[in-house]
Amino acid sequence: MKVEKNDRLILLTNDDGLYAGGLNTLINVIQEFGKVVVISTIESRSGMSQALTVKMPLRIKLLDETDTKRIYACSGTPTDGVKIAVNQLLERKPDWVVSGINHGANASVSVIYSGTMAAAIEGCLYGIDSVGFSLNSFSSKADFTPSEKYVRMIMNNLIRHKLPKGICLNVNIPFVPGKEIRGVKVCRQARGNWREEFEKRKDPMGKTYYWLTGIFENHEPKSTDTDEWALANNYVSVVPVSVDMTAHNYLDDLKNQINNE
Amino acid sequence: MKVEKNDRLILLTNDDGLYAGGLNTLINVIQEFGKVVVISTIESRSGMSQALTVKMPLRIKLLDETDTKRIYACSGTPTDGVKIAVNQLLERKPDWVVSGINHGANASVSVIYSGTMAAAIEGCLYGIDSVGFSLNSFSSKADFTPSEKYVRMIMNNLIRHKLPKGICLNVNIPFVPGKEIRGVKVCRQARGNWREEFEKRKDPMGKTYYWLTGIFENHEPKSTDTDEWALANNYVSVVPVSVDMTAHNYLDDLKNQINNE
Repeated sequence: MKVEKNDRLILLTNDDGLYAGGLNTLINVIQEFGKVVVISTIESRSGMSQALTVKMPLRIKLLDETDTKRIYACSGTPTDGVKIAVNQLLERKPDWVVSGINHGANASVSVIYSGTMAAAIEGCLYGIDSVGFSLNSFSSKADFTPSEKYVRMIMNNLIRHKLPKGICLNVNIPFVPGKEIRGVKVCRQARGNWREEFEKRKDPMGKTYYWLTGIFENHEPKSTDTDEWALANNYVSVVPVSVDMTAHNYLDDLKNQINNE
Repeated sequence: MKVEKNDRLILLTNDDGLYAGGLNTLINVIQEFGKVVVISTIESRSGMSQALTVKMPLRIKLLDETDTKRIYACSGTPTDGVKIAVNQLLERKPDWVVSGINHGANASVSVIYSGTMAAAIEGCLYGIDSVGFSLNSFSSKADFTPSEKYVRMIMNNLIRHKLPKGICLNVNIPFVPGKEIRGVKVCRQARGNWREEFEKRKDPMGKTYYWLTGIFENHEPKSTDTDEWALANNYVSVVPVSVDMTAHNYLDDLKNQINNE
């Protein structure tokens, strides 16, 4: 059964906050596909992963409402925002959850730390077709115009092909002029990790504190089927992300070990 | 090459805080295997997932030090704690990261929200053999004695069989007297989700706020190969968890869709 534009309800969110350029690009493009409800924070909540607010109550404020768009401010994490929208604020379960466009890439293991992707994963856990978009630039003034075409392309693909249960999409867009983007590449998550992750400093009282920083290290820079390779080579990367974290390929080995205890 | 007890360096953490019974059980048992360094928060930081502290500096305090044990308080999340221990506090990369024992199960999709499992996942991302333990009781006074045998069993198995790269273990222990535990079962993560997740209340000023709550719904209660089934049937569940979230089984379908755009 085809969902028509007038019937489509779409939840938008991000982790850079309501004033971020990436979210506002997404709002403009996604309105072409249906009615949008936006929920996010006033300030950014980057690096929150799938964190939940468990010790504090959540506050919600309706900031703007028209026939085709509603905007809420939420005091919690991106995951809280999706949960409270689906449970309390929306008239029905939305057709899509779309998150981003993040200021900064979420390729490789960043999917695990990202609030942007956590929101998409949360939508997926509710059985909603969900996508997270990220641009490979941390600049708050980055030009998101070249991204628009790829947001449209991915969402049009979602209209033709619903996602399987338990799978959402992690889309990363290279930060180059539109004509230099070489196309879209379906990839797997690159193996990698962060290193040299803290700066040690002294505060004005002479006490030590640490700031999180770090350098990403791609453990397989020569593999051409990864999201890191795609981004580095000016392709839009699309990784299907599974909410099932079981290492299925290790189940049998582990069973044999445990049974032989 | 076998690591002997005297040479083994083990990082312990949790998300219930330094005073939690589960962590202190773990400290006692794991000291049988080597030198332990403990890092955690004073208060609990449950439901933090893989969240990072990016907008605030981190503070660390050495609380206790003997020849075989060192205890640090950390101002950040469980993931921050593992990162700063590995990067700044430890004399070398530890042999194991062991997290827990959590007060409350982390089966099924809870692996995605859990700070306990995030710490194990973080260890795994550094290439360290890592395990998260959880007991199926939220009580702060729960008896962890029956868990001790299974912590020893899992760690002894890890001595015999190093984990493959990118895989850590999620161990959940049923909350029943020791003699009722029927053994250890290697499982996959059950499909499930949370519902009815918020209580709507009024504050003393008459303003609305929401508390996170919710009921877990197992989407496959009849499957006998899941962690939820194992726990409900008094088995210790062991799920190998992969840090690669790629839905490998959907890559080809998605490639065909995108190539036909």
